[in-house]
Amino acid sequence: MTSAASPAYRRLSVEERRRQLLEAALTLFAHRPPEEVSLDDVAEAAGVSRPLVYRYFPGGKQQLYEAALRSSADALERCFAEPPEGPPTERVSRVLDRYLAFVDQHDAGFAALLRGGSVAETSRTSAIVDEVRRAAAEQILFHLGVGAPGPRLGMMVRTWIAAVEAASLIWVDEGKRPPAPELRDWLVDHLVALLAATAAGDAETADVVARLLSQERAAGPVGRLAKRVIPVVSQAAHLL
Amino acid sequence: MTSAASPAYRRLSVEERRRQLLEAALTLFAHRPPEEVSLDDVAEAAGVSRPLVYRYFPGGKQQLYEAALRSSADALERCFAEPPEGPPTERVSRVLDRYLAFVDQHDAGFAALLRGGSVAETSRTSAIVDEVRRAAAEQILFHLGVGAPGPRLGMMVRTWIAAVEAASLIWVDEGKRPPAPELRDWLVDHLVALLAATAAGDAETADVVARLLSQERAAGPVGRLAKRVIPVVSQAAHLL
Repeated sequence: MTSAASPAYRRLSVEERRRQLLEAALTLFAHRPPEEVSLDDVAEAAGVSRPLVYRYFPGGKQQLYEAALRSSADALERCFAEPPEGPPTERVSRVLDRYLAFVDQHDAGFAALLRGGSVAETSRTSAIVDEVRRAAAEQILFHLGVGAPGPRLGMMVRTWIAAVEAASLIWVDEGKRPPAPELRDWLVDHLVALLAATAAGDAETADVVARLLSQERAAGPVGRLAKRVIPVVSQAAHLL
Repeated sequence: MTSAASPAYRRLSVEERRRQLLEAALTLFAHRPPEEVSLDDVAEAAGVSRPLVYRYFPGGKQQLYEAALRSSADALERCFAEPPEGPPTERVSRVLDRYLAFVDQHDAGFAALLRGGSVAETSRTSAIVDEVRRAAAEQILFHLGVGAPGPRLGMMVRTWIAAVEAASLIWVDEGKRPPAPELRDWLVDHLVALLAATAAGDAETADVVARLLSQERAAGPVGRLAKRVIPVVSQAAHLL
Protein backbone atom coordinates (compact mmCIF):
# COMPACT_ATOMS: atom_id res chain seq x y z
CA MET A 1 0.00 0.00 0.00
CA THR A 2 1.51 3.41 -0.89
CA SER A 3 1.35 6.24 1.60
CA ALA A 4 -0.85 8.26 -0.72
CA ALA A 5 -3.48 5.49 -0.86
CA SER A 6 -3.40 4.64 2.86
CA PRO A 7 -6.45 5.72 4.85
CA ALA A 8 -3.96 7.25 7.30
CA TYR A 9 -3.28 9.97 4.80
CA ARG A 10 -6.74 10.61 3.52
CA ARG A 11 -7.93 13.98 4.70
CA LEU A 12 -10.55 13.38 7.36
CA SER A 13 -12.03 16.00 9.61
CA VAL A 14 -11.23 15.65 13.30
CA GLU A 15 -14.71 14.29 13.90
CA GLU A 16 -14.47 11.82 11.00
CA ARG A 17 -11.07 10.58 12.16
CA ARG A 18 -12.30 10.18 15.73
CA ARG A 19 -15.28 8.19 14.49
CA GLN A 20 -13.06 6.03 12.26
CA LEU A 21 -10.77 5.15 15.19
CA LEU A 22 -13.73 4.47 17.44
CA GLU A 23 -15.29 2.14 14.89
CA ALA A 24 -12.05 0.20 14.53
CA ALA A 25 -11.84 -0.05 18.33
CA LEU A 26 -15.49 -1.08 18.65
CA THR A 27 -15.00 -3.95 16.21
CA LEU A 28 -11.95 -5.16 18.12
CA PHE A 29 -13.50 -4.76 21.59
CA ALA A 30 -16.68 -6.47 20.41
CA HIS A 31 -14.89 -9.74 19.79
CA ARG A 32 -12.02 -9.78 22.26
CA PRO A 33 -11.76 -8.92 25.94
CA PRO A 34 -10.09 -5.49 26.42
CA GLU A 35 -6.87 -7.00 27.76
CA GLU A 36 -6.36 -8.71 24.41
CA VAL A 37 -6.69 -5.54 22.34
CA SER A 38 -3.62 -3.30 21.97
CA LEU A 39 -3.40 0.24 20.65
CA ASP A 40 -1.27 -1.19 17.84
CA ASP A 41 -4.22 -3.44 16.90
CA VAL A 42 -6.49 -0.40 16.76
CA ALA A 43 -3.97 1.59 14.70
CA GLU A 44 -3.56 -1.32 12.30
CA ALA A 45 -7.29 -1.91 11.94
CA ALA A 46 -7.83 1.78 11.19
CA GLY A 47 -4.79 1.89 8.88
CA VAL A 48 -3.15 4.70 10.84
CA SER A 49 -0.06 5.12 13.00
CA ARG A 50 -0.01 4.48 16.74
CA PRO A 51 0.92 8.16 17.49
CA LEU A 52 -2.17 9.25 15.57
CA VAL A 53 -4.36 7.07 17.81
CA TYR A 54 -2.69 8.71 20.84
CA ARG A 55 -3.31 12.17 19.41
CA TYR A 56 -7.06 11.46 19.43
CA PHE A 57 -7.10 9.39 22.60
CA PRO A 58 -4.26 10.73 24.78
CA GLY A 59 -5.52 8.51 27.63
CA GLY A 60 -4.57 5.50 25.50
CA LYS A 61 -6.43 2.23 25.57
CA GLN A 62 -8.45 3.04 28.67
CA GLN A 63 -9.84 6.23 27.10
CA LEU A 64 -10.54 4.43 23.84
CA TYR A 65 -12.27 1.61 25.71
CA GLU A 66 -14.46 4.04 27.62
CA ALA A 67 -15.35 5.93 24.43
CA ALA A 68 -16.19 2.63 22.69
CA LEU A 69 -18.29 1.58 25.69
CA ARG A 70 -20.09 4.94 25.72
CA SER A 71 -20.87 4.50 22.03
CA SER A 72 -22.13 0.92 22.58
CA ALA A 73 -24.24 2.02 25.52
CA ASP A 74 -25.88 4.67 23.34
CA ALA A 75 -26.55 2.09 20.62
CA LEU A 76 -28.02 -0.32 23.17
CA GLU A 77 -30.26 2.35 24.67
CA ARG A 78 -31.52 3.23 21.18
CA CYS A 79 -32.43 -0.41 20.55
CA PHE A 80 -34.60 -0.42 23.72
CA ALA A 81 -36.90 2.26 22.28
CA GLU A 82 -40.22 0.78 21.17
CA PRO A 83 -43.46 2.66 20.43
CA PRO A 84 -46.29 2.03 22.92
CA GLU A 85 -48.46 0.19 20.41
CA GLY A 86 -49.94 -3.31 20.56
CA PRO A 87 -49.85 -5.83 23.40
CA PRO A 88 -47.08 -5.01 25.90
CA THR A 89 -45.48 -8.48 25.82
CA GLU A 90 -45.19 -8.24 22.01
CA ARG A 91 -43.39 -4.91 22.43
CA VAL A 92 -41.04 -6.47 24.98
CA SER A 93 -40.42 -9.34 22.52
CA ARG A 94 -39.34 -6.86 19.84
CA VAL A 95 -37.02 -5.08 22.28
CA LEU A 96 -35.50 -8.44 23.25
CA ASP A 97 -34.99 -9.32 19.57
CA ARG A 98 -32.94 -6.17 19.10
CA TYR A 99 -31.10 -6.70 22.40
CA LEU A 100 -30.14 -10.28 21.50
CA ALA A 101 -28.99 -9.15 18.04
CA PHE A 102 -26.74 -6.63 19.82
CA VAL A 103 -25.39 -9.33 22.15
CA ASP A 104 -24.81 -11.59 19.14
CA GLN A 105 -22.78 -8.87 17.40
CA HIS A 106 -20.73 -7.93 20.47
CA ASP A 107 -20.38 -11.34 22.08
CA ALA A 108 -16.88 -11.42 23.57
CA GLY A 109 -16.75 -7.72 24.38
CA PHE A 110 -20.22 -7.86 25.91
CA ALA A 111 -19.27 -10.83 28.06
CA ALA A 112 -15.98 -9.24 29.20
CA LEU A 113 -17.79 -6.07 30.14
CA LEU A 114 -20.59 -7.65 32.14
CA ARG A 115 -18.50 -10.37 33.69
CA GLY A 116 -16.24 -7.99 35.57
CA GLY A 117 -12.62 -8.46 36.50
CA SER A 118 -11.48 -6.90 33.23
CA VAL A 119 -8.37 -4.76 33.46
CA ALA A 120 -10.24 -1.97 31.68
CA GLU A 121 -13.07 -1.97 34.20
CA THR A 122 -13.32 1.05 36.47
CA SER A 123 -16.02 2.83 38.44
CA ARG A 124 -16.60 4.92 35.26
CA THR A 125 -17.24 1.89 33.06
CA SER A 126 -19.45 0.37 35.78
CA ALA A 127 -21.44 3.61 35.87
CA ILE A 128 -22.07 3.39 32.12
CA VAL A 129 -23.27 -0.21 32.47
CA ASP A 130 -25.54 0.78 35.36
CA GLU A 131 -26.97 3.60 33.25
CA VAL A 132 -27.90 1.08 30.53
CA ARG A 133 -29.60 -1.11 33.16
CA ARG A 134 -31.56 1.88 34.41
CA ALA A 135 -32.61 2.78 30.85
CA ALA A 136 -33.76 -0.83 30.33
CA ALA A 137 -35.81 -0.76 33.55
CA GLU A 138 -37.42 2.54 32.54
CA GLN A 139 -38.42 1.13 29.15
CA ILE A 140 -40.02 -1.96 30.70
CA LEU A 141 -41.91 0.17 33.22
CA PHE A 142 -43.02 2.46 30.40
CA HIS A 143 -44.58 -0.50 28.54
CA LEU A 144 -46.18 -1.68 31.79
CA GLY A 145 -47.74 1.80 32.06
CA VAL A 146 -45.89 2.73 35.26
CA GLY A 147 -44.03 5.98 35.89
CA ALA A 148 -42.60 5.74 39.40
CA PRO A 149 -42.88 2.14 40.62
CA GLY A 150 -43.28 1.14 44.25
CA PRO A 151 -40.41 -0.81 45.82
CA ARG A 152 -41.67 -4.31 44.99
CA LEU A 153 -42.47 -3.62 41.34
CA GLY A 154 -39.23 -1.67 40.95
CA MET A 155 -37.24 -4.56 42.40
CA MET A 156 -39.13 -7.01 40.20
CA VAL A 157 -38.25 -5.19 36.98
CA ARG A 158 -34.59 -4.68 37.92
CA THR A 159 -34.33 -8.32 38.96
CA TRP A 160 -35.76 -9.47 35.64
CA ILE A 161 -33.24 -7.29 33.80
CA ALA A 162 -30.43 -8.93 35.77
CA ALA A 163 -31.89 -12.31 34.79
CA VAL A 164 -31.92 -11.26 31.10
CA GLU A 165 -28.27 -10.22 31.37
CA ALA A 166 -27.29 -13.48 33.03
CA ALA A 167 -29.22 -15.49 30.45
CA SER A 168 -27.51 -13.68 27.57
CA LEU A 169 -24.06 -14.31 29.07
CA ILE A 170 -24.89 -18.01 29.43
CA TRP A 171 -26.23 -17.93 25.87
CA VAL A 172 -22.93 -16.52 24.53
CA ASP A 173 -20.99 -19.09 26.58
CA GLU A 174 -23.04 -21.97 25.26
CA GLY A 175 -22.48 -21.19 21.59
CA LYS A 176 -25.71 -19.17 21.26
CA ARG A 177 -27.98 -22.13 21.90
CA PRO A 178 -31.00 -22.13 21.91
CA PRO A 179 -31.66 -19.95 18.81
CA ALA A 180 -32.35 -16.31 19.75
CA PRO A 181 -36.15 -16.45 19.14
CA GLU A 182 -36.47 -19.36 21.59
CA LEU A 183 -34.43 -17.55 24.23
CA ARG A 184 -36.52 -14.42 23.66
CA ASP A 185 -39.78 -16.33 24.18
CA TRP A 186 -38.47 -17.90 27.37
CA LEU A 187 -37.37 -14.49 28.70
CA VAL A 188 -40.84 -13.08 28.00
CA ASP A 189 -42.39 -16.12 29.75
CA HIS A 190 -40.06 -15.40 32.66
CA LEU A 191 -41.31 -11.81 32.85
CA VAL A 192 -44.96 -12.87 32.70
CA ALA A 193 -44.46 -15.55 35.39
CA LEU A 194 -42.62 -13.08 37.61
CA LEU A 195 -45.35 -10.47 37.14
CA ALA A 196 -48.01 -13.03 38.14
CA ALA A 197 -46.08 -14.21 41.21
CA THR A 198 -45.36 -10.62 42.28
CA ALA A 199 -48.99 -9.55 41.68
CA ALA A 200 -50.00 -12.32 44.10
CA GLY A 201 -48.57 -10.25 46.96
CA ASP A 202 -48.38 -6.64 45.74
CA ALA A 203 -51.42 -4.49 44.93
CA GLU A 204 -49.57 -2.18 42.50
CA THR A 205 -48.26 -5.12 40.47
CA ALA A 206 -51.74 -6.69 40.55
CA ASP A 207 -53.12 -3.49 38.91
CA VAL A 208 -50.35 -3.57 36.31
CA VAL A 209 -51.09 -7.22 35.52
CA ALA A 210 -54.85 -6.59 35.23
CA ARG A 211 -54.19 -3.76 32.75
CA LEU A 212 -51.62 -5.80 30.85
CA LEU A 213 -53.93 -8.82 30.51
CA SER A 214 -56.66 -6.61 29.08
CA GLN A 215 -54.24 -5.56 26.29
CA GLU A 216 -52.98 -9.05 25.43
CA ARG A 217 -54.18 -11.39 22.66
CA ALA A 218 -54.87 -15.13 22.79
CA ALA A 219 -52.25 -15.69 20.06
CA GLY A 220 -49.65 -13.54 21.86
CA PRO A 221 -47.01 -14.49 24.47
CA VAL A 222 -49.35 -14.48 27.50
CA GLY A 223 -52.01 -16.53 25.72
CA ARG A 224 -49.45 -19.08 24.54
CA LEU A 225 -47.89 -19.36 28.00
CA ALA A 226 -51.29 -19.62 29.71
CA LYS A 227 -52.32 -22.57 27.52
CA ARG A 228 -49.03 -24.43 28.03
CA VAL A 229 -48.83 -23.78 31.78
CA ILE A 230 -52.30 -25.19 32.61
CA PRO A 231 -51.22 -28.88 32.63
CA VAL A 232 -48.23 -27.96 34.85
CA VAL A 233 -50.25 -25.92 37.32
CA SER A 234 -53.14 -28.40 37.48
CA GLN A 235 -50.75 -30.78 39.26
CA ALA A 236 -50.78 -28.36 42.21
CA ALA A 237 -54.51 -28.93 42.86
CA HIS A 238 -53.74 -30.89 46.05
CA LEU A 239 -52.07 -27.78 47.50
CA LEU A 240 -55.15 -25.57 47.26
CA MET B 1 -1.80 0.25 76.11
CA THR B 2 1.67 -1.00 77.02
CA SER B 3 3.66 -3.00 74.52
CA ALA B 4 3.53 -6.04 76.76
CA ALA B 5 -0.29 -5.99 76.80
CA SER B 6 -0.70 -5.24 73.09
CA PRO B 7 -2.07 -8.06 70.95
CA ALA B 8 0.84 -7.34 68.63
CA TYR B 9 3.19 -8.88 71.12
CA ARG B 10 1.14 -11.81 72.27
CA ARG B 11 2.73 -15.01 71.10
CA LEU B 12 0.51 -16.39 68.36
CA SER B 13 1.34 -19.28 66.10
CA VAL B 14 1.79 -18.44 62.42
CA GLU B 15 -1.64 -19.88 61.71
CA GLU B 16 -3.27 -18.00 64.61
CA ARG B 17 -1.67 -14.74 63.51
CA ARG B 18 -2.74 -15.25 59.91
CA ARG B 19 -6.30 -15.93 61.06
CA GLN B 20 -6.29 -12.87 63.32
CA LEU B 21 -5.18 -10.61 60.46
CA LEU B 22 -7.70 -12.16 58.11
CA GLU B 23 -10.52 -11.63 60.59
CA ALA B 24 -9.59 -7.98 61.02
CA ALA B 25 -9.49 -7.60 57.22
CA LEU B 26 -12.81 -9.42 56.80
CA THR B 27 -14.54 -7.06 59.22
CA LEU B 28 -13.16 -4.03 57.38
CA PHE B 29 -13.86 -5.35 53.86
CA ALA B 30 -17.37 -6.37 54.94
CA HIS B 31 -18.41 -2.81 55.58
CA ARG B 32 -16.33 -0.74 53.18
CA PRO B 33 -15.43 -1.11 49.52
CA PRO B 34 -11.83 -2.38 49.14
CA GLU B 35 -10.55 0.99 47.87
CA GLU B 36 -11.47 2.52 51.23
CA VAL B 37 -9.56 -0.01 53.32
CA SER B 38 -5.81 0.53 53.79
CA LEU B 39 -3.22 -1.86 55.17
CA ASP B 40 -2.78 0.62 58.03
CA ASP B 41 -6.47 0.15 58.85
CA VAL B 42 -5.98 -3.62 58.96
CA ALA B 43 -2.84 -3.30 61.10
CA GLU B 44 -4.64 -0.97 63.48
CA ALA B 45 -7.74 -3.17 63.73
CA ALA B 46 -5.55 -6.20 64.50
CA GLY B 47 -3.39 -4.18 66.90
CA VAL B 48 -0.19 -5.00 65.00
CA SER B 49 2.36 -3.10 62.92
CA ARG B 50 2.06 -2.58 59.19
CA PRO B 51 5.30 -4.53 58.51
CA LEU B 52 3.83 -7.51 60.34
CA VAL B 53 0.81 -7.45 58.02
CA TYR B 54 3.24 -7.40 55.07
CA ARG B 55 5.16 -10.32 56.50
CA TYR B 56 2.00 -12.45 56.39
CA PHE B 57 0.62 -10.97 53.19
CA PRO B 58 3.62 -9.90 51.09
CA GLY B 59 1.26 -9.16 48.20
CA GLY B 60 -0.22 -6.37 50.34
CA LYS B 61 -3.84 -5.33 50.18
CA GLN B 62 -4.62 -7.30 47.03
CA GLN B 63 -3.43 -10.56 48.58
CA LEU B 64 -5.27 -9.80 51.81
CA TYR B 65 -8.43 -8.99 49.86
CA GLU B 66 -8.24 -12.23 47.92
CA ALA B 67 -7.65 -14.24 51.09
CA ALA B 68 -10.60 -12.50 52.77
CA LEU B 69 -12.75 -13.17 49.70
CA ARG B 70 -11.69 -16.84 49.68
CA SER B 71 -12.67 -17.12 53.34
CA SER B 72 -16.06 -15.42 52.68
CA ALA B 73 -16.71 -17.65 49.70
CA ASP B 74 -16.08 -20.73 51.87
CA ALA B 75 -18.46 -19.38 54.54
CA LEU B 76 -21.10 -18.64 51.90
CA GLU B 77 -20.79 -22.12 50.36
CA ARG B 78 -21.17 -23.67 53.81
CA CYS B 79 -24.39 -21.73 54.38
CA PHE B 80 -25.85 -23.18 51.15
CA ALA B 81 -25.67 -26.72 52.56
CA GLU B 82 -29.09 -28.01 53.54
CA PRO B 83 -30.14 -31.62 54.19
CA PRO B 84 -32.52 -33.11 51.61
CA GLU B 85 -35.44 -33.35 54.02
CA GLY B 86 -38.92 -31.90 53.77
CA PRO B 87 -40.55 -30.00 50.89
CA PRO B 88 -37.88 -28.60 48.49
CA THR B 89 -39.19 -25.01 48.60
CA GLU B 90 -38.93 -25.04 52.40
CA ARG B 91 -35.31 -26.15 52.10
CA VAL B 92 -34.63 -23.36 49.60
CA SER B 93 -36.28 -20.92 52.04
CA ARG B 94 -33.87 -21.95 54.79
CA VAL B 95 -30.88 -21.58 52.45
CA LEU B 96 -32.11 -18.09 51.48
CA ASP B 97 -32.49 -17.16 55.17
CA ARG B 98 -28.83 -17.98 55.76
CA TYR B 99 -27.80 -16.26 52.51
CA LEU B 100 -29.65 -13.05 53.39
CA ALA B 101 -28.14 -13.11 56.91
CA PHE B 102 -24.72 -13.30 55.23
CA VAL B 103 -25.57 -10.40 52.91
CA ASP B 104 -26.84 -8.43 55.92
CA GLN B 105 -23.53 -8.96 57.75
CA HIS B 106 -21.32 -8.15 54.77
CA ASP B 107 -23.41 -5.46 53.12
CA ALA B 108 -20.93 -2.92 51.74
CA GLY B 109 -18.21 -5.46 50.97
CA PHE B 110 -20.71 -7.77 49.33
CA ALA B 111 -22.06 -4.96 47.18
CA ALA B 112 -18.58 -3.77 46.16
CA LEU B 113 -17.60 -7.29 45.20
CA LEU B 114 -20.63 -8.10 43.10
CA ARG B 115 -20.99 -4.67 41.58
CA GLY B 116 -17.64 -4.76 39.82
CA GLY B 117 -15.40 -1.85 38.95
CA SER B 118 -13.63 -2.22 42.27
CA VAL B 119 -9.89 -1.59 42.17
CA ALA B 120 -9.32 -4.90 43.93
CA GLU B 121 -11.25 -6.86 41.32
CA THR B 122 -9.24 -9.18 39.09
CA SER B 123 -9.86 -12.30 37.05
CA ARG B 124 -8.92 -14.23 40.23
CA THR B 125 -11.57 -12.54 42.38
CA SER B 126 -14.13 -12.99 39.57
CA ALA B 127 -13.26 -16.69 39.45
CA ILE B 128 -13.98 -17.01 43.20
CA VAL B 129 -17.34 -15.28 42.78
CA ASP B 130 -18.18 -17.55 39.82
CA GLU B 131 -17.29 -20.58 41.91
CA VAL B 132 -19.80 -19.47 44.58
CA ARG B 133 -22.44 -19.06 41.87
CA ARG B 134 -21.73 -22.57 40.60
CA ALA B 135 -21.96 -23.97 44.13
CA ALA B 136 -25.32 -22.21 44.57
CA ALA B 137 -26.62 -23.65 41.30
CA GLU B 138 -25.50 -27.15 42.30
CA GLN B 139 -27.31 -26.88 45.62
CA ILE B 140 -30.56 -25.78 43.99
CA LEU B 141 -30.34 -28.59 41.44
CA PHE B 142 -29.63 -31.05 44.26
CA HIS B 143 -32.86 -30.03 46.01
CA LEU B 144 -34.71 -30.27 42.71
CA GLY B 145 -33.38 -33.83 42.43
CA VAL B 146 -31.32 -33.16 39.30
CA GLY B 147 -27.68 -34.18 38.76
CA ALA B 148 -26.71 -32.98 35.30
CA PRO B 149 -29.40 -30.56 34.05
CA GLY B 150 -30.26 -30.08 30.38
CA PRO B 151 -29.52 -26.65 28.88
CA ARG B 152 -32.89 -25.06 29.61
CA LEU B 153 -33.12 -26.16 33.26
CA GLY B 154 -29.45 -25.28 33.77
CA MET B 155 -29.99 -21.81 32.36
CA MET B 156 -33.13 -21.41 34.46
CA VAL B 157 -31.34 -22.16 37.73
CA ARG B 158 -28.35 -19.94 36.92
CA THR B 159 -30.67 -17.15 35.84
CA TRP B 160 -32.61 -17.37 39.10
CA ILE B 161 -29.35 -17.20 41.04
CA ALA B 162 -28.43 -14.02 39.15
CA ALA B 163 -31.87 -12.66 40.04
CA VAL B 164 -31.28 -13.47 43.73
CA GLU B 165 -27.93 -11.67 43.59
CA ALA B 166 -29.46 -8.63 41.92
CA ALA B 167 -32.34 -8.56 44.40
CA SER B 168 -29.94 -8.71 47.36
CA LEU B 169 -27.88 -5.82 45.96
CA ILE B 170 -31.04 -3.74 45.55
CA TRP B 171 -32.07 -4.79 49.06
CA VAL B 172 -28.77 -3.52 50.52
CA ASP B 173 -29.10 -0.28 48.50
CA GLU B 174 -32.63 0.31 49.72
CA GLY B 175 -31.83 0.12 53.41
CA LYS B 176 -32.71 -3.60 53.67
CA ARG B 177 -36.38 -3.08 52.92
CA PRO B 178 -38.54 -5.18 52.82
CA PRO B 179 -37.58 -7.26 55.90
CA ALA B 180 -35.50 -10.32 54.98
CA PRO B 181 -38.32 -12.89 55.46
CA GLU B 182 -40.50 -11.00 52.97
CA LEU B 183 -37.70 -10.82 50.42
CA ARG B 184 -37.02 -14.54 50.98
CA ASP B 185 -40.66 -15.44 50.32
CA TRP B 186 -40.70 -13.35 47.14
CA LEU B 187 -37.49 -15.01 45.91
CA VAL B 188 -39.01 -18.45 46.50
CA ASP B 189 -42.19 -17.35 44.66
CA HIS B 190 -39.92 -16.18 41.85
CA LEU B 191 -38.30 -19.64 41.66
CA VAL B 192 -41.65 -21.43 41.67
CA ALA B 193 -43.07 -19.13 38.97
CA LEU B 194 -39.96 -19.55 36.84
CA LEU B 195 -40.09 -23.35 37.24
CA ALA B 196 -43.75 -23.37 36.14
CA ALA B 197 -43.10 -21.13 33.11
CA THR B 198 -40.04 -23.18 32.11
CA ALA B 199 -41.89 -26.48 32.61
CA ALA B 200 -44.48 -25.18 30.13
CA GLY B 201 -41.91 -25.61 27.35
CA ASP B 202 -39.29 -28.08 28.61
CA ALA B 203 -39.98 -31.76 29.35
CA GLU B 204 -37.13 -32.14 31.86
CA THR B 205 -38.32 -29.16 33.89
CA ALA B 206 -41.88 -30.48 33.68
CA ASP B 207 -40.70 -33.73 35.32
CA VAL B 208 -38.86 -31.78 38.01
CA VAL B 209 -41.96 -29.70 38.74
CA ALA B 210 -44.22 -32.78 38.90
CA ARG B 211 -41.85 -34.39 41.43
CA LEU B 212 -41.51 -31.14 43.39
CA LEU B 213 -45.28 -30.63 43.59
CA SER B 214 -45.74 -34.13 44.98
CA GLN B 215 -43.38 -33.21 47.86
CA GLU B 216 -44.93 -29.85 48.72
CA ARG B 217 -47.50 -29.07 51.42
CA ALA B 218 -50.61 -26.88 51.19
CA ALA B 219 -49.25 -24.68 54.01
CA GLY B 220 -45.84 -24.35 52.32
CA PRO B 221 -44.51 -21.81 49.81
CA VAL B 222 -46.08 -23.40 46.70
CA GLY B 223 -49.48 -23.83 48.36
CA ARG B 224 -49.47 -20.22 49.60
CA LEU B 225 -48.45 -18.88 46.19
CA ALA B 226 -50.98 -21.05 44.34
CA LYS B 227 -53.86 -19.69 46.47
CA ARG B 228 -52.79 -16.07 46.04
CA VAL B 229 -52.08 -16.32 42.32
CA ILE B 230 -55.50 -17.74 41.34
CA PRO B 231 -57.32 -14.35 41.32
CA VAL B 232 -54.47 -12.88 39.21
CA VAL B 233 -54.40 -15.72 36.70
CA SER B 234 -58.19 -15.97 36.41
CA GLN B 235 -58.09 -12.57 34.67
CA ALA B 236 -56.33 -14.29 31.76
CA ALA B 237 -59.38 -16.49 30.97
CA HIS B 238 -60.09 -14.50 27.79
CA LEU B 239 -56.66 -15.53 26.44
CA LEU B 240 -57.32 -19.27 26.60
